[in-house]
Amino acid sequence: MSDLRALLREDLRGQEPYGAPQLDVPVALNTNESSYPVPAEVVEAIVAAVGEVAPTLNRYPDREFTALRAALAGYLTATTGQPLATEQLWAANGSNEVLSHLVQAFGGPGRVALGFTPSYSMHPIIARSVGTTWVDGLRGTPSGAYDLDVTTAVEQVRAADPALVFLTSPNNPTGTALGLDVVEAVHDAAQGAVVIVDEAYAEFARPGTPSALTLLPGRERLVVTRTMSKAFAFAGVRLGYLAADPALTELLRLVRLPYHLSSVTQATARAALEHTGALLGMVEAIKAERDRLVTGTRDLGLDPVPSDANFVLVGGFADAARTWQALLDRGVLVRDVGIPHHLRITAGTPAETDAVLTALGDLVADHRQQETA
Amino acid sequence: MSDLRALLREDLRGQEPYGAPQLDVPVALNTNESSYPVPAEVVEAIVAAVGEVAPTLNRYPDREFTALRAALAGYLTATTGQPLATEQLWAANGSNEVLSHLVQAFGGPGRVALGFTPSYSMHPIIARSVGTTWVDGLRGTPSGAYDLDVTTAVEQVRAADPALVFLTSPNNPTGTALGLDVVEAVHDAAQGAVVIVDEAYAEFARPGTPSALTLLPGRERLVVTRTMSKAFAFAGVRLGYLAADPALTELLRLVRLPYHLSSVTQATARAALEHTGALLGMVEAIKAERDRLVTGTRDLGLDPVPSDANFVLVGGFADAARTWQALLDRGVLVRDVGIPHHLRITAGTPAETDAVLTALGDLVADHRQQETA
Repeated sequence: MSDLRALLREDLRGQEPYGAPQLDVPVALNTNESSYPVPAEVVEAIVAAVGEVAPTLNRYPDREFTALRAALAGYLTATTGQPLATEQLWAANGSNEVLSHLVQAFGGPGRVALGFTPSYSMHPIIARSVGTTWVDGLRGTPSGAYDLDVTTAVEQVRAADPALVFLTSPNNPTGTALGLDVVEAVHDAAQGAVVIVDEAYAEFARPGTPSALTLLPGRERLVVTRTMSKAFAFAGVRLGYLAADPALTELLRLVRLPYHLSSVTQATARAALEHTGALLGMVEAIKAERDRLVTGTRDLGLDPVPSDANFVLVGGFADAARTWQALLDRGVLVRDVGIPHHLRITAGTPAETDAVLTALGDLVADHRQQETA
Repeated sequence: MSDLRALLREDLRGQEPYGAPQLDVPVALNTNESSYPVPAEVVEAIVAAVGEVAPTLNRYPDREFTALRAALAGYLTATTGQPLATEQLWAANGSNEVLSHLVQAFGGPGRVALGFTPSYSMHPIIARSVGTTWVDGLRGTPSGAYDLDVTTAVEQVRAADPALVFLTSPNNPTGTALGLDVVEAVHDAAQGAVVIVDEAYAEFARPGTPSALTLLPGRERLVVTRTMSKAFAFAGVRLGYLAADPALTELLRLVRLPYHLSSVTQATARAALEHTGALLGMVEAIKAERDRLVTGTRDLGLDPVPSDANFVLVGGFADAARTWQALLDRGVLVRDVGIPHHLRITAGTPAETDAVLTALGDLVADHRQQETA
């Protein structure tokens, strides 16, 4: 074992694999999945689509996944009003792989990627996987500890001189969306950079929250990433995608492994995209539970962060790790994202909200952070 | 466009995306797929498995894909007689991604990967994708232009001081298998390297060709990669895998993107592995066609290389690109792998062998390389 470890890439030594514990618990609210099973009409469509493609699985998939790209373009156009062409879309096995294609094309040794933490913890891991230097930018404005405004964002972009900038809207794990003025200002300030807006949770945003997709025209260096894992209740399929200028998606063909999207994945995702109504049907219900989590935890004297996503970051715990374990002992799995005094709770079914609020109610007196006045 | 291209990673500029043309032709013998559709009993099993998993696709897949690893271990154990444990197996979306995990873990800037060309052209591309320096080793012995023997292999290993060595058995595009003495000697000589034996075509080898799987015990740095794309007639599913020491597969967890294998891919591959008899049923028929291609092209005065794979590299063309086009004009798509005077032809159905031999017979008089005596 020691022998082999010595051959490992230097920066990987001593690291642990990424990933939340996959535990079998009654109430799993730790990975921002949908708690709602895939609806029967979508299951039927998937089975039919796979049955159609299965006899031809002896052949390689369509390497350019054109029909899937067209379907994704159609979905975004219909839901955001921003007209998108097939060649503006790109997809891969999860948005992690989409992001990996971006850092492979535009990152690498001697180049800098800038993100604003706390944010999605895979961003630095993916950037570093090809030797890109990661710079941890800071969040925080007078209006909110996890907000980002034009002035501080632009300042940090100028200081870092990045090849890639990661923005997130809504942000994970804090839940807050980003103003388009910040995206525009960062794009203008980062003249040498590809600017990525990770909109994995966009479908859960509060009314009036605009998508950065509307900024794409005329911005060749801007990329908006999305996923079918969250609002689509489709985490098991691993389908992430992005929209950008056709010139940018064309360059990603240089770094993707050939035939990276299987025929089964393409067929399954296309079947689902023909049933977006059914798949997205639970989004409003999930948003209601998210808002209940905000209200419920505030009523318990905790400190939830306002959220545009399908989760709530809740502050006010004396010791987040201790509360995480106490909740798990009660059959409720949430996420300790490493922010002191905070836990992230996914919004699930009404029964799951009841369960987590009841469990928190039982233990909060002993677990609440004391005022230090 | 020019603006964006300037932001591209330096070593990608001016490159073209990898991949053979995906053309709709009557006889496609260019990518070493199986020409035989997936059998009905396997289609049924796949549809049933996907139907079972589809309602739960709102959840992330098993990140450690344990049941699939067990099934792959069972398959290799049964077919090679080499007992393999679940934790010795690893899988990803195609063997390209498996290889990518290996170079991510053990390659990178300042490290060398050595392969022996001509060989699988993705090896250098994947190695370079994380900044590994690629060294093109040479093949050739008195017994064959594309063979590799202990002495020349070991010499080249010592000179390159690699972190990764790529061996291939049977080799693509030449078709020849490698003696285990070469694998053993390279492993012993390359003390600082992970040694990869790419056995993508192993199931097609002529009788008596041993697998490097038998060398795994006691060799922590040895890796054997396989794929379901070829003999399994399952290219559309994108399932590559490897067997190695459990200590090595454990390290790959550091570099794989979390949840890289979808629930649908895991279910589909497991269903297929319960029907290996049906899936592998055409292997003997394909080997017969391969041998017919060797005999038939030799009878036409061409120069086929003996093959242990599902393809034949045929030499003796005056101008390989011109013959490639002439065959395409006759509805037959083969592969120009860039070796002067050679084309690679996949072994398909008897009718496809007839078609390619007839087409070659029509044009050979005008296309054969002239003796330069």
